[in-house]
Order: sequence, then structure tokens, then C-alpha cells
Amino acid sequence: MTTRRIALFKEGIDLELLSSGGGASEVSLQVKPSHMNAVGVLHGGAVFTLVDSGMACAIMELLRQGETCVSIEIKVQNVAPVREGTLVASSVVLHKGRTIAHVESEVRTAQGRLVAKGMGTFFVRTPVTARGEPRGS
Amino acid sequence: MTTRRIALFKEGIDLELLSSGGGASEVSLQVKPSHMNAVGVLHGGAVFTLVDSGMACAIMELLRQGETCVSIEIKVQNVAPVREGTLVASSVVLHKGRTIAHVESEVRTAQGRLVAKGMGTFFVRTPVTARGEPRGS
Amino acid sequence: MTTRRIALFKEGIDLELLSSGGGASEVSLQVKPSHMNAVGVLHGGAVFTLVDSGMACAIMELLRQGETCVSIEIKVQNVAPVREGTLVASSVVLHKGRTIAHVESEVRTAQGRLVAKGMGTFFVRTPVTARGEPRGS
Amino acid sequence: MTTRRIALFKEGIDLELLSSGGGASEVSLQVKPSHMNAVGVLHGGAVFTLVDSGMACAIMELLRQGETCVSIEIKVQNVAPVREGTLVASSVVLHKGRTIAHVESEVRTAQGRLVAKGMGTFFVRTPVTARGEPRGS
Repeated sequence: MTTRRIALFKEGIDLELLSSGGGASEVSLQVKPSHMNAVGVLHGGAVFTLVDSGMACAIMELLRQGETCVSIEIKVQNVAPVREGTLVASSVVLHKGRTIAHVESEVRTAQGRLVAKGMGTFFVRTPVTARGEPRGS
Repeated sequence: MTTRRIALFKEGIDLELLSSGGGASEVSLQVKPSHMNAVGVLHGGAVFTLVDSGMACAIMELLRQGETCVSIEIKVQNVAPVREGTLVASSVVLHKGRTIAHVESEVRTAQGRLVAKGMGTFFVRTPVTARGEPRGS
Repeated sequence: MTTRRIALFKEGIDLELLSSGGGASEVSLQVKPSHMNAVGVLHGGAVFTLVDSGMACAIMELLRQGETCVSIEIKVQNVAPVREGTLVASSVVLHKGRTIAHVESEVRTAQGRLVAKGMGTFFVRTPVTARGEPRGS
Repeated sequence: MTTRRIALFKEGIDLELLSSGGGASEVSLQVKPSHMNAVGVLHGGAVFTLVDSGMACAIMELLRQGETCVSIEIKVQNVAPVREGTLVASSVVLHKGRTIAHVESEVRTAQGRLVAKGMGTFFVRTPVTARGEPRGS
């Protein structure tokens, strides 16, 4: 059997971190023709990449020295199809505990129209000392 | 204020549709260094793009003449970090109604290790005649 | 093998619809000991029931004559454990299309502390005439 | 303004743990008229309660001495409406790490028809010694 190639994002996905701080971030994506899916609207993978990156940027500033974060799970709802323009994902950390952070993200057009909303959970890794204790404890 | 550029997927994301039929599909992604995120593991956006595309391929074969589908929402859980290798997303349509399809997708390494699982909802668009009736009704 | 009975919510779950209108609602739950789970915190099923009902109340007011709605999927993140007090779910319809509504809900304590957040998708059923056309079309 | 009371589950929700072991569980719910919502189908809160409890039962058997688990987030997709009968939730732990467990659950009728599917993330709490180290480390 022959397989079929699905070539996506061939110009890449370039995001701009517009601002971040205090558990929030704004990240933008300028939509290009190479971001479209087979039916001519922005590929869900491009929207998700924007949301995921925006959430990570929002958490980043809350991390203490040595901590890193990775997404455990993210859900994105596609509220309206997108065909062109610049999108901005505004992400906010709802709560950051010792190991878990809850984050949400709204994606809007330059005109302020909501096109997607995401909600996710991140894991915060604390560096441990050789003795297995959280550093500084 | 200066913005910071986050350049992702600069070589693009090339998927291979390995098989599809009967409401299921297998789509693969060969992981490249350009798919990594800032902490050196596969970017969630790449995993999601694989899942989203795989789900669409699984639904596609169940669509009737003229029908198209778009994702309403998808959630992906990252079960294990990925650094290299080839991933395969096996997607299955759980149920396809007249307008809604429920789909799930498992992403595994070549060794069969589960690295991510997705669950999503798609909207099935039925073409309508000029009189506003579903075609053929 | 003998099965084990898990008896939940034996006094029921009584919600109060505090307000609704314009695609939003406020619904409250007074937490009772019978709402707790095996580890002594509010059962996720009670939180979800509050969120699901609140979302439906928010959509209800936007429905036209004859339309009804059912939830397609809902995700709830438990941000903080709850042991007592009164919770209020504030739900907002993010977008209502012809057949799909996107809704979110925040659950807070009387002191305003966020304890859970939900995001869901509802299906809006339009009554059809005998000729298969949407009523009024 | 007068509030409106929404009285749910007044006979409670009684589940039966049919089996558990090896990171899996089967839990059943006999559907009663008091589990219905305003439009006459099984309330999403009842389905979710079944799923949430089933997931917890599946994880429980994998926990080591002293560990407990709480749900971080769960998403449930309602695949088909339910009006009567007995439902069984079959839950499986997809992966259990040191602090995070990924779980899924399928809810079927006695005839084997899929009516709902859930996917969730649980937090595994490890008891710590007075010195702040995981017990036994």
C-alpha cells in the first residue's frame, strides 16, 4: 500500500511573545496560507500551538529558580473558523500549586472576536538535591 | 516594548497517512529536532497536529457525498515525553451521528509505548439545497 | 465475587438558580457532608453537576421557541479541594451558533476563591416541520 | 428576586463496584427516574459521577501504602442519551507516574452500546516523612 503525505506548516509557525508577567501572557500568530487545513480554515494544530505556547509563557514567570513546566493536558474549543489576520492568545494562570498549574487561554482576532478557548493543566518540576529533597527545603 | 519571536516547526510538520477506512486511521510523524519545545521535548503543538489530522482522516471515510467535517474541540493528554523516533496516531470514530462525531486517538512510539491520548468532537456539515433541506431528503 | 456498594449523594443535590439572562447564569450549591467522597472532600460528581446545570441555565435564555439543548461534552478542572460552605457557579455562553454553543463556568466559594473551572459544548436542537425544514425557515 | 430550586438525585446515586484490579475497574449504575434532567434524559452529573468514581477505583489498586489520589480534571463526552437501564463504566489507568495518573473510562449499556467516554488526570499524593522526604526514600 502507498502512504499519502500530509505536509503541514511548511513555512513554520512563528509566534510573537507580546507580553508576560504576573501569571499572564499575550502571544500572537500572523496567519499564513501554509497554516490552513484541507478545507481552507486555520488548522487546529496551529491554534493549539499558539495556546500551548501562550500558556507556558504565562506560567514561566511564576516559576522559581530551577523550576520548569510541561503540559499534562490541554483542551481547545474552536469557537469560530479563522481564514486570515493576526490572532492573539491571552493566557492566565488560574492557580499554581506546588506541582500543578491550571491555565486558560482566549484566542481573539485583531478585532477582538473570540475564535478559540483553551484550558490546560501543567506540571511544575522542582529540582531536587542529591538527597532527594526539594532544593532549599 | 520589544517582542520576542518564538519560531516553531521551521521545517514544517510532515505526516504520513498510513491507512484509513471504516472509521479509523493511522497517521505517523517522524520526530525532528525542529519539533522540540524550549525544554527539549516534542512540542505539544506537534502532538496535537498529529492527533487532529488523524481524527479528521478517520472521520473522512464515513462522510457521505458533499459532507465535510471540522473539529469543535479536542483534548490531548501527554502521557510521556517524546524526544525522537516515529510516532503513530491510531484514531477511531466512537460514534457518528447526523451532525456530531466523537473520536479518540492514541499516539504510540514504534515500540508501542503510549505517549499521548486525545478525545475530540467534530461537526459534520451537510450540504443543503436551495430550499434549505438536507440534500436527498 | 461480591460487589461493593458506593452510596453517593443520599440527601440529593439541591441547587439554587440565583439568576440567569443574557447568556449567563449563577447557580449555587450548599455543600453537605453527604456530598463528600471517600477522602473527605467534595465529590467531583457534585462539582460537575453544579457546572453542567449552570451551563444549561446560561444557554436556556438564548434559545428560541421550541429549541432545547443537551451537553455534548464538558471538562472540569478541580483547582482546589472543597470541604464545606456554599459554592456559586457563574456560567457564560462564549458563543452560540445555529447548532453548537460553547460555554464556560467558574465555581467559587462565598469568599470568592476559585475552586473549579469548566468548559463545555452543547448541542442546540431545532424543532423541524413535517417537511424537514427548520420551523420558520 | 426569588431564586428557583433545582432538586437533583433525591434518591441519591448508588453505584456498584463490580470488579477492580490491575489498574482497571468496572462500576455500575442502575438508572432511576430521579437521575433524569429537565429534558428527560440521564443528567450529565450522574454520568460524570459514575465515571469519576470508576476512575478512582481503577487507580486505587495501584496505589502504594499511604498514597491517595484526587482528580485534577476530567472530561466526559456524551455519545448517546440514556433514559433507563443499567450502565457499566469500564475504567483503565493508561499510565501512572510518581505523581500523575492518566485514566480513561467507557460507559456502556447492558447491551454493550457506548453512551459516554471520559478521560481524566489524577494526582497521586505521597505521604512524606517529618524531614520532607517521600516515605521510604
